[in-house]
Amino acid sequence: MLKDFLQFVQTKVSLNTENLIGNLNEIEKSMAHTSLASSKMIRAALLIASGKLNANIHGSSLITLASAVEMMHSYSLIHDDLPCMDDDDFRRSKPSNHIVFGEANAVLAGDALQALAFETIVNDKLLSDEQKIQSIKILSSACGKNGMIYGQHLDIENEQNPDLDINELDYIHNLKTGRLIESSIFLGQVGSSLSEIDYKRLNEFSANIGLAFQIKDDVLDVTSSSKKLGKTALSDKKNNKSTYVNIVGVDNSIKRYNLLIEDAIIALDKISFDSESYNYLKDLAEYIIKREN
Amino acid sequence: MLKDFLQFVQTKVSLNTENLIGNLNEIEKSMAHTSLASSKMIRAALLIASGKLNANIHGSSLITLASAVEMMHSYSLIHDDLPCMDDDDFRRSKPSNHIVFGEANAVLAGDALQALAFETIVNDKLLSDEQKIQSIKILSSACGKNGMIYGQHLDIENEQNPDLDINELDYIHNLKTGRLIESSIFLGQVGSSLSEIDYKRLNEFSANIGLAFQIKDDVLDVTSSSKKLGKTALSDKKNNKSTYVNIVGVDNSIKRYNLLIEDAIIALDKISFDSESYNYLKDLAEYIIKREN
Repeated sequence: MLKDFLQFVQTKVSLNTENLIGNLNEIEKSMAHTSLASSKMIRAALLIASGKLNANIHGSSLITLASAVEMMHSYSLIHDDLPCMDDDDFRRSKPSNHIVFGEANAVLAGDALQALAFETIVNDKLLSDEQKIQSIKILSSACGKNGMIYGQHLDIENEQNPDLDINELDYIHNLKTGRLIESSIFLGQVGSSLSEIDYKRLNEFSANIGLAFQIKDDVLDVTSSSKKLGKTALSDKKNNKSTYVNIVGVDNSIKRYNLLIEDAIIALDKISFDSESYNYLKDLAEYIIKREN
Repeated sequence: MLKDFLQFVQTKVSLNTENLIGNLNEIEKSMAHTSLASSKMIRAALLIASGKLNANIHGSSLITLASAVEMMHSYSLIHDDLPCMDDDDFRRSKPSNHIVFGEANAVLAGDALQALAFETIVNDKLLSDEQKIQSIKILSSACGKNGMIYGQHLDIENEQNPDLDINELDYIHNLKTGRLIESSIFLGQVGSSLSEIDYKRLNEFSANIGLAFQIKDDVLDVTSSSKKLGKTALSDKKNNKSTYVNIVGVDNSIKRYNLLIEDAIIALDKISFDSESYNYLKDLAEYIIKREN
């Protein structure tokens, strides 16, 4: 059931993204190289699952928003992989963007994907003006100087910092990865009539799965292979990154992400909404820690 | 009079930008380094001059939009100066962003400035929802994969291309520089009641001054000093760029930008609007080709 849902999300979002990017000029080709490469699209899936409980949003607008979120995610990957950042040559089972198109085009493709994410939202046919504005507020804030970008800065800044403790690592990863994952869930809710208390519960759910996602990523980096991951395994070690694994070890990391997902589902259980949305969100939360890439 | 107007624009936009960026974390400092450095702010001035003939927009919203445009411009400069792009060490009379903050932070500061440009528009207090959406449509399209970014790609792609002719160069510069200059003028018009024929005339004005701006830049690159320019003189030569100067020579370049500004003002003369807006736009058009940096 989750498999079918993920398949549906990946197909719809890829098709929409393909149409939005086009394939005429070299920059579009560079954008497509990373955006249309095989990907789990967990953010898109969380957004659409969350949106299923929002009566005030059309299904096709959920695809719009999911495409925008995945464009932001893809742009961040392209820039993160640059030689001046994490210097990774392999991404989504293919050579990284700058390996294929060169560094200049990789910078530009990332820049253009960010612009296209916002352009895609304002050009949607069925979102209300208010929903568009609310969406851009959520996305620009999550991906800005106090969100994803600051997290990426801290992540690089703290390479080879042996004194980093787990609270600081939580802080960095909440910014770097968590904010966009959380915003995906809240983008599904634009214009919804969710009560304040349910909103808080959804927030708790989101924060927990965002952090669990990152801890699982750190564990996979040391326990999986490059082939399975579709990106370079042991990349954190190469960059001397502080990770959950080297601060608390693999076993404690696994314990922690299991607990986080338990807590996430406890928060989710308290929200009053339809079973389809509940089931997808619950399954996605569990998938986040069961996945092998 | 123009001097006072430019001073007004620079002061207001800088103050607003300073507030929007803040100065707490390292990314904000990196953003501020380029955004708040001394700059002519021609785009902001064109936007505000154009906006003076728009009865449906508040003065403070013009400052909002002008700040957003200048953020987009600053982000493009930061990324253009990177070693993988034009590799320029000197910008706005200071060491370039990556020289001071490192390449990773320069990439991130540019990324964050783009996000903040859109965030700034949606958070404005006095623009209508429709004006915000119209503004984001204009800006995201001008700066995207078929606008500024594609122009920058073609500019780099055509380094050391001896066969580039003047029509191709016009095409590249219309994308790389012209689109953002034109969009500045049209951002001043969001929600305005300009007639279709006047809109076309304003479009002609914008296109002409956008191109004249770039030709003047090419001339300055060979006739001025780094100190006066606040950026590296002879940078085009270093990068083997095709420029108007090396295709048609300095004299013909000067003739051409003079003609373009004449045509721009002829188009402007036909527009029926108040004299304050007319005067500022006319003076700015002339300033573009008289400036020494």
